[in-house]
Amino acid sequence: MPAAPDILPFSAAEYARRLTLTRAAMAEAGIDVLFVEDPSNMAWLTGYDGWSFYVHQGVLVFHDHDPIWWGRNQDANGAVRTVWMPDERVIGYADNFVQSTERHPMQDLARIIHETGHGNARIGVEMENYYFSAKAYVTMLQELPGAQFVDATALVNWQRGVKSDEEIAFMRRAARIAEKVVDGVIERVEPGLRKNDLVAEIYGDIIRGDGADCWGDYPSIVPLLPSGTDASAPHLTWNGDTFKKGEATFFELAGCYRRYHVPVCRTVFLGDPPDHIRRAEAALLEGLEAGLEAARPGRRACDIANALAEPLERAGIERGARCGYPIGLSYPPDWGERTVSLRAEDQTELKPGMTFHFMPGLWMNDWGLEITESILIRDHGPAETFCNRPRRLHVKA
Amino acid sequence: MPAAPDILPFSAAEYARRLTLTRAAMAEAGIDVLFVEDPSNMAWLTGYDGWSFYVHQGVLVFHDHDPIWWGRNQDANGAVRTVWMPDERVIGYADNFVQSTERHPMQDLARIIHETGHGNARIGVEMENYYFSAKAYVTMLQELPGAQFVDATALVNWQRGVKSDEEIAFMRRAARIAEKVVDGVIERVEPGLRKNDLVAEIYGDIIRGDGADCWGDYPSIVPLLPSGTDASAPHLTWNGDTFKKGEATFFELAGCYRRYHVPVCRTVFLGDPPDHIRRAEAALLEGLEAGLEAARPGRRACDIANALAEPLERAGIERGARCGYPIGLSYPPDWGERTVSLRAEDQTELKPGMTFHFMPGLWMNDWGLEITESILIRDHGPAETFCNRPRRLHVKA
Repeated sequence: MPAAPDILPFSAAEYARRLTLTRAAMAEAGIDVLFVEDPSNMAWLTGYDGWSFYVHQGVLVFHDHDPIWWGRNQDANGAVRTVWMPDERVIGYADNFVQSTERHPMQDLARIIHETGHGNARIGVEMENYYFSAKAYVTMLQELPGAQFVDATALVNWQRGVKSDEEIAFMRRAARIAEKVVDGVIERVEPGLRKNDLVAEIYGDIIRGDGADCWGDYPSIVPLLPSGTDASAPHLTWNGDTFKKGEATFFELAGCYRRYHVPVCRTVFLGDPPDHIRRAEAALLEGLEAGLEAARPGRRACDIANALAEPLERAGIERGARCGYPIGLSYPPDWGERTVSLRAEDQTELKPGMTFHFMPGLWMNDWGLEITESILIRDHGPAETFCNRPRRLHVKA
Repeated sequence: MPAAPDILPFSAAEYARRLTLTRAAMAEAGIDVLFVEDPSNMAWLTGYDGWSFYVHQGVLVFHDHDPIWWGRNQDANGAVRTVWMPDERVIGYADNFVQSTERHPMQDLARIIHETGHGNARIGVEMENYYFSAKAYVTMLQELPGAQFVDATALVNWQRGVKSDEEIAFMRRAARIAEKVVDGVIERVEPGLRKNDLVAEIYGDIIRGDGADCWGDYPSIVPLLPSGTDASAPHLTWNGDTFKKGEATFFELAGCYRRYHVPVCRTVFLGDPPDHIRRAEAALLEGLEAGLEAARPGRRACDIANALAEPLERAGIERGARCGYPIGLSYPPDWGERTVSLRAEDQTELKPGMTFHFMPGLWMNDWGLEITESILIRDHGPAETFCNRPRRLHVKA
């Protein structure tokens, strides 16, 4: 089955497992053909890897034939090198469809759907996805008037939730990288160091990886490291300012191995932390410990969130945000899987092999604190943390 | 006007210029309210900067009031720190709208549109955009049954085409970084070096930048550096393989200063290049020279493409792809502006201040060659190249 076994990250059996799961979910939803534009889902199903998701591309999944990779002509060269399907299942479209004001790539896709005899089929599309635009949808409606469209948002993402042993092995490699990155940050950060100079070192650790077989891939989110009052904002990146004494900086980072992510966040205080940050740290660590205890097979996503909330509420901290999400294979702009959310209203049952970033960031009015763990739901007992690094506020004088 | 002058990258007059241009384009298209979800357009209009575009957010542009920044509650903290509008024009939505299976953030946006008295207005939306999903569109249709929707794809992008002096100054800084990055690659690449180890150094140069005020920002595309037969595929990233003697590797890279990009590509051959690559190099350099000559105010986008094509065709090379796109402010997944394409069918008139990545990559059956220039259309004469580095195949023995 694999056409390029030296490049494919996973075994043929693993790709077969994924296809079987996806087809079963399609059948349950009454979908004849599934069009997958999410690059993470494309990679998970076929092995495709490349930074080409800024143009329309996708994978067509059928019940009775191998999937078709479809994309820009020039990217078909990358597809034949990375997917397990035979070359004839890779189809490119002409370059003048790209960012054209006159034509849309979905016209070409619709032609293929017609030609494969699915012009009147029930077609699943990922309605809520970065890469399936409103225009793509409207164009498909116009070009396939006989088809029925079914919202297949996250249909494949949900199949990705429980990780195989092969996937967990990749995440353990990502975790080794993440640990190295955190160690490097804590060692290097000091007053007067410019933020961008530290980010340069962070990227060095991320991408060098951890040994010959464990080369580092790019994480789907860049390092985030706001300080002081800016740490009230979770998604600021960096600039050329220096780290300052008397400020907390949180570091939101990840190791990535062949697109599999293990994020981890730690906070460093330069100087003597004020009481309110020490109190928040104590409550947060208690909440993390309680959440890890609750993260057992048979329990629910909300149980983790509720376990975390209790000590935080006692300390007078109201977060008002979810405290985690599933992780694994991902492409920008997010390293989450966009299925489960660790929050009070989410009743999803936890199963062995599920992996989450347990991420109870505190973004308060004029300070912030992030201490997080990437976790694996085990067969029994509380969750395992992928990284093994001191879970506390790091204080440097 | 600026609420945070120490953080805003541009003058109040520059933001006023941008708003005036956008409102004029809205009026011409009969748009009462414009909803802008493209993060590059959000930043260009308001100054907003943060890696929060993986959830729904946007800017509402009105004819008679300051824009509204709208996004996730926790990201409102970042917005008040980065936009020029007063804090009351920053509106957050509750966290349980995020990646929910029960509710959609556009329900919250529709409420705001109603409350500002625009429930029956003509609303412009970016139908073809990474961040405005099919589901977002369908939800807006449902929630605002009295409104008329107008496709405002790239309406703001087109206003960004001619750069101000302030913007060109940023791009010159990005160019200094890009030159440093290219120099580092050519100096370091050698047989036996692992690709990811070189990428670690590349990121170091990108992010350290070039001096105290010129810190490096993250480019919107990661470094691309396929070798040998893999160089036939334009968008492969890296792995832990080593560079090998007898192979060409192209390096697609950029410098980035405060989200403004200057891409540049060079190719390195380790060893003695075969004749077909030497012939391609000669034709490509002639084509680049001809394209730069054609890139004058009053000429058209297609003139650059046609000038390039002539020597390539003489050498028997058919590219079949556009040879460039506008550049400037950008967020992932693309550093292009997605308006003009340098290709035979594009009649866009070239104007002083326009900036392009003139990018005639050759991706052939079993090899690839990239030698490119980022260019500025001047008031008179041929285009200026932002970078000043030898334009040729680099050969290392």
